[in-house]
Amino acid sequence: MGDLSHAHHVVIVGAGFGGLEVAHRLAGAPVRITIVDQRNHHLFQPLLYQVATASLATSEIAWPIRHLVRRRKEVTTLLAVVTGIDSGNAKLLLADGGMVAYDTLVLATGARHAYFGHDEWEPYAPGLKTLEDATAIRRRILLSFERAECETDAECRAALLTFVIVGGGPTGVELAGTIAELANENLVGEFRRIDTREARIILIEAGPRILPSFAEDLSAYAHSALKRLGVEIELGRPVRECTDNGVVFGDRKLSTKVILWAAGVQASSAADWLGVPADHVNRIKVEPDLSAPGHPEIFVIGDTATIDAWHGKPVPGIAPAAKQQGRHVATTIKIRLRGCISPRPFRYRHSGSLATIGKRSAIIDFGWIRLRGWVAWWIWGFAHIYFLIGVRNRLAVALSWLWIYVSGDRSARLITQGEQPPKQE
Amino acid sequence: MGDLSHAHHVVIVGAGFGGLEVAHRLAGAPVRITIVDQRNHHLFQPLLYQVATASLATSEIAWPIRHLVRRRKEVTTLLAVVTGIDSGNAKLLLADGGMVAYDTLVLATGARHAYFGHDEWEPYAPGLKTLEDATAIRRRILLSFERAECETDAECRAALLTFVIVGGGPTGVELAGTIAELANENLVGEFRRIDTREARIILIEAGPRILPSFAEDLSAYAHSALKRLGVEIELGRPVRECTDNGVVFGDRKLSTKVILWAAGVQASSAADWLGVPADHVNRIKVEPDLSAPGHPEIFVIGDTATIDAWHGKPVPGIAPAAKQQGRHVATTIKIRLRGCISPRPFRYRHSGSLATIGKRSAIIDFGWIRLRGWVAWWIWGFAHIYFLIGVRNRLAVALSWLWIYVSGDRSARLITQGEQPPKQE
Repeated sequence: MGDLSHAHHVVIVGAGFGGLEVAHRLAGAPVRITIVDQRNHHLFQPLLYQVATASLATSEIAWPIRHLVRRRKEVTTLLAVVTGIDSGNAKLLLADGGMVAYDTLVLATGARHAYFGHDEWEPYAPGLKTLEDATAIRRRILLSFERAECETDAECRAALLTFVIVGGGPTGVELAGTIAELANENLVGEFRRIDTREARIILIEAGPRILPSFAEDLSAYAHSALKRLGVEIELGRPVRECTDNGVVFGDRKLSTKVILWAAGVQASSAADWLGVPADHVNRIKVEPDLSAPGHPEIFVIGDTATIDAWHGKPVPGIAPAAKQQGRHVATTIKIRLRGCISPRPFRYRHSGSLATIGKRSAIIDFGWIRLRGWVAWWIWGFAHIYFLIGVRNRLAVALSWLWIYVSGDRSARLITQGEQPPKQE
Repeated sequence: MGDLSHAHHVVIVGAGFGGLEVAHRLAGAPVRITIVDQRNHHLFQPLLYQVATASLATSEIAWPIRHLVRRRKEVTTLLAVVTGIDSGNAKLLLADGGMVAYDTLVLATGARHAYFGHDEWEPYAPGLKTLEDATAIRRRILLSFERAECETDAECRAALLTFVIVGGGPTGVELAGTIAELANENLVGEFRRIDTREARIILIEAGPRILPSFAEDLSAYAHSALKRLGVEIELGRPVRECTDNGVVFGDRKLSTKVILWAAGVQASSAADWLGVPADHVNRIKVEPDLSAPGHPEIFVIGDTATIDAWHGKPVPGIAPAAKQQGRHVATTIKIRLRGCISPRPFRYRHSGSLATIGKRSAIIDFGWIRLRGWVAWWIWGFAHIYFLIGVRNRLAVALSWLWIYVSGDRSARLITQGEQPPKQE
């Protein structure tokens, strides 16, 4: 390629699955690309719960963005925080006062966990979206066992050994399953004053069943698989309060020191930047070609967008959907550069839904076939290792899992940052 | 072993190399043991600089203490902060208000980095003693490159690309060498607006040569090896000031945003807890048998103690010395339990000094032979992998190093925690 300094400038905000896919699919196109992210790393979010439960190290599921695109000389990576968009002048505004001019803008800024108007619950019920979230949750879980070992009051000890997960979607199920294994397998025999098997792991779901996005028989299988792991499941009662001392759901109250939030997400501020309408969780209702309403030069993909492009149903908020959207946007950009401007509607093709329950069981719904149990777990494992980006990380994660599987030893059981000493409570 | 609940109670404060060695060497003795540490993990400090420079993940050099002693049913591990010692009543006082009664107490509480009366420098010149220190330094180094990429002012960019390491001991040399490799090898080609090879890495040592504890020829070799890596070495000028904008040493001033402190340590508060005399860095001058003056039932080992037991010279503050002291204390305790109370003087046997300069060169002084270059590096590498505690970690670190060596790819280049956005400065 020749000099691209005056080429069409594609600016991608957010280097998640969607944003990176746009960059990858634009390889060879006559464009220059700037990736802007407030983090220096791409995060393999589907495995984040394994960092939170001490199975994987942070560096096994995250890679520096600029390292991933190092061979693409036309791609510039900026670590910067976006504060707004001046769409009239086609400029992205940054927190440091800088601006980035764009010809085409792609917003792939994702979502955060949300508390349905109860942001005051966040300190007591952290969610899981970033590496910091994961290490904070890991610290909270491990510290609770440590404090229980020092605690002499039986009631306080019971509260310290009660782990509540709010939300029965895939993340909640995965957290509950792995915490149960931590307590009932990995930690057994390492404490002298408590028996970690006495820990209660309680999964609270407001709806009538866990994993509502799956077929009912798979959901029922996951339910019984979780119960076999020792997880208590509470259905049909929404959480009404989270405090330092426990959780209130429906008419019931549980004393606990660890509440984990896996109940809902809220899209990023992209809708506010553009001043376009958004749905109840702040997702932009995009046009059929994934552009923002009234802004054909701005595309919105992934968890920040909503579109009924799955046989008339909304596209799910999962990595493969974000990647398909990224691919579609890259193709649209390339076609436009050739002079064709008729919009190409996006169609989502669902390849399957997966959820894992601990380290021996999973459920998979491919549509044409439904799998469950250890076969599903191995397919899940291979699929995830396959999709991990770095060659080395594939190997590292495979080794980590193999090790945990064979030895029952979780290597990343580190309490770091924040409150170190166990307080008598 | 039978019921040990009334057995002689050995309380070990600090699960570093010394403290853990006491516990390991007391295996089979008719004692019960309590290990108290304010961290949940044992840290392999000699490799901490590799976490700080993004080569290793935190979980590759740290292990949960209770996991290391899980098979020793007579050993209890407590995550707690010690605030004092009631030696009259033989009780250890904890921050949570609790107390632990002991028959024999072992203080192996280590040291922190110190600023010679200039604690106000700490925010600008962090030291390297804990996992948090290492991830904080990693963040600072990586963030400085990221900010330089966004910076338009040439002078500010130059300051962002200037890395100063204060202290020419092994840690300072190791940090300088690996940062030089990061800038000149690993990061090359990943930035678009800066050339990371333009980074200056400057090692400041107040004395006349780096690595003063080594023989002069090895020190000279390390000096030229560092210069070959691109490190500038400034000798003979002590640091007079560290600020947000730079460092003043002797009559010179350097503009920099990253100062790393490897210049001095200060022992823990053990001397204050006991009310016994301490030297200028707060180390307790222990009796020949490693007991605290006036307290035959209290032993002090590792970086918290000082003793002239190396042919009349002070024992060095390195891991093998702490382990030898731990072994000596364990043997003394076992002999005392058999009724013999005559004190056994500790003698230090030096097996060698090692320091590494980047990933291709090291120096080793065994006393009877001196080695340098790549042979020394491989011996250093094998020695460190051999002494890593967990089987899996040995494998993981070996693989990490092999990968970095072969591919030039550093896997742990993550900016986490703290200030995320790059500020325009």
